[in-house]
Amino acid sequence: MDTSTFKRLWEELHDIGRTEQGGYRRYAWSEADLACRNWFRRQAERRDMEVESDRNGNLYAWWGTWRTGEAVLTGSHFDSVPDGGAYDGPLGIVSAFLAVDVLREQGARPRRPIGIAAFTEEEGARFGVPCLGTRLMTGAIDPERARRLADADGATLGQAMEENNADAGVLGPDTERLAHLAAFVELHIEQGRALDAETAPVGVADAIRPHGRWRLTFTGEGNHAGTTLLPDRCDPMLTFAFTVLAARKEARLAGGVATVGRAEIDPGATNAIPGRVRAWLDARAPDEATLGQILTGLESKMHERAGRDGTLAAIETETQTGTVEFDPALRDRLATALGGAPTLPTGAGHDAGVLAAHIPTAMLFVRNRTGVSHAPAETATDDDCAAGVDALAAALRELAC
Amino acid sequence: MDTSTFKRLWEELHDIGRTEQGGYRRYAWSEADLACRNWFRRQAERRDMEVESDRNGNLYAWWGTWRTGEAVLTGSHFDSVPDGGAYDGPLGIVSAFLAVDVLREQGARPRRPIGIAAFTEEEGARFGVPCLGTRLMTGAIDPERARRLADADGATLGQAMEENNADAGVLGPDTERLAHLAAFVELHIEQGRALDAETAPVGVADAIRPHGRWRLTFTGEGNHAGTTLLPDRCDPMLTFAFTVLAARKEARLAGGVATVGRAEIDPGATNAIPGRVRAWLDARAPDEATLGQILTGLESKMHERAGRDGTLAAIETETQTGTVEFDPALRDRLATALGGAPTLPTGAGHDAGVLAAHIPTAMLFVRNRTGVSHAPAETATDDDCAAGVDALAAALRELAC
Repeated sequence: MDTSTFKRLWEELHDIGRTEQGGYRRYAWSEADLACRNWFRRQAERRDMEVESDRNGNLYAWWGTWRTGEAVLTGSHFDSVPDGGAYDGPLGIVSAFLAVDVLREQGARPRRPIGIAAFTEEEGARFGVPCLGTRLMTGAIDPERARRLADADGATLGQAMEENNADAGVLGPDTERLAHLAAFVELHIEQGRALDAETAPVGVADAIRPHGRWRLTFTGEGNHAGTTLLPDRCDPMLTFAFTVLAARKEARLAGGVATVGRAEIDPGATNAIPGRVRAWLDARAPDEATLGQILTGLESKMHERAGRDGTLAAIETETQTGTVEFDPALRDRLATALGGAPTLPTGAGHDAGVLAAHIPTAMLFVRNRTGVSHAPAETATDDDCAAGVDALAAALRELAC
Repeated sequence: MDTSTFKRLWEELHDIGRTEQGGYRRYAWSEADLACRNWFRRQAERRDMEVESDRNGNLYAWWGTWRTGEAVLTGSHFDSVPDGGAYDGPLGIVSAFLAVDVLREQGARPRRPIGIAAFTEEEGARFGVPCLGTRLMTGAIDPERARRLADADGATLGQAMEENNADAGVLGPDTERLAHLAAFVELHIEQGRALDAETAPVGVADAIRPHGRWRLTFTGEGNHAGTTLLPDRCDPMLTFAFTVLAARKEARLAGGVATVGRAEIDPGATNAIPGRVRAWLDARAPDEATLGQILTGLESKMHERAGRDGTLAAIETETQTGTVEFDPALRDRLATALGGAPTLPTGAGHDAGVLAAHIPTAMLFVRNRTGVSHAPAETATDDDCAAGVDALAAALRELAC
């Protein structure tokens, strides 16, 4: 695929949901998301591909008729984290349409239907649960719980869907669809720098490391910042701050990563000791034992500190995912089809990780020279992206033609 | 004053700006503030007192005509911190109307006009600068800067005033008004427990301790929470957390107080290392040298930590106020008029502190049994509040009759 062709299609998405600072705010069922979905429909029309939306709000474009056979699915997601980068998600969808173009130019006649998916709420940035579209599809989340998930303004997923004329009453497992899928291949920008070290533009994933999100709640006693003596305070901000540092330390000692990137301070006034601080912990590790070790260490230190601060600390699991090993046979077949592409693990969760429990699944990573992700500076070169399209086309040819 | 009379008037304000959790959100120029202002106008009407608004949005009710003589002013403010208590501010206004009733029942004929003030934006909860109404009136803040102060939604003070048909173009020093004021006496709920130890329901302030607000900015590098290795991170949340704990420690060692009650995390996603954390420090101390010591100690530790985290830390003064000694002659005169009331310092800022630089000013504190302030649990007994009304009436009689 020549670089300018990639660039032309890529730039069509450039302005959708982009802030003045260059980051993206493409949240599920937002205006930006709808603009992306409309773009998706237009791309499918241009290519004579049939578009359908499933019961969970995921979109598909089909080359061939998926119910007639075992389909090969590719694609990714449009939604972003707040002020996220351009590539995480959309690159997999743009590359999929271009890979169809490459196959057609090559005169390929797929014996299996090829589908392009745009999964909904992969980042969990609006409703808090990542990979929500594929979790619903595979029955990994109760539809009733999903309907009630609320965004920061209190709007639920159910309401957001109804506002967009999507029927939230039919959310839930989609076993018929899963039964018709022979494989899923997700192309994604790499979110670290392993490929940079390999000097290869494209790699094949071998596993997703175990990871999870925990909600931390620190409860103290709201009071006046000027007149309350230090010994009389029960300041949950102290316990929170200690926990941020302790999480980092436990992760370092165990050999994983831990991050606190979001917190809500109640009431959040300059001249008031907060009554409560809520925060979210993201932790990941090479294996499940190490992840458990980080959490256990953190919990005991956090509670000990809460005792000293006169506060209460609580931790609840929001999501937790064990190691996901991608299908080794599929991985090796694709690595070979790509001329011996390197294989690498990833610390990020993906819809591919959710689907891997149900169908043979693989991921292709496109090199990210800086490793920056989930931030405006996330980038891949146009040349590497074009190489990604060719790799995805080769993978689809291998599996579907 | 009998307790039930106090209670009846007090309860008229109970529901204005109150949340379901029992805290108050009465922000300057909000609907709740306008409801309080309307209540103020009705109280003045009931008592045949003339109401006027000054060029800075402060409201006054007059017994007598202020321009004809040297007036004695009392009153306080309606606005609250987020989820604040009922008493901080409104108690001084309710008590002022009731003190006028007491004086009239006693047949008093003031030789000086008596005014009741409701100053605007005392807490700085909406536009960030506390005592904004009196700072504007005394020329302590540039009117152009004040007009441009923005709330969390980006609305400026100028816009908020215009929306309420108040002319923001005339904001600024009001020297004529100050020249006509002989004294200001603010009644306020105590925000500590000194009076509880004294077993007295009302005390007289002798000083406001030095205090200030500083804005802290921690800048790092936004990145993916799962795929960015710990050594590759520049996580400003770590520097922020360290600074929260360091502020507490420096305050403890020096003998002051320091609080971080508000922070903004950018972008604030569970699965993203933040690019920036902004926070606000509130610090107070018995004297200016001690306050300086806390700040100096904190700054050097914060920068040292930022160096280790690969982040940048910056601190800017938003407001800083030295020790305010209330007029000693006025203080002693009132303490005597109140039958030997105890005198006490306070760690909280007040409009009285701003006005004290221009006119003889005093404060009366009403006992707070728990010491809780700036939180829903802030409370004084009805008996103590009634005693406060009597004390304020005695003070006004002493100064105006």
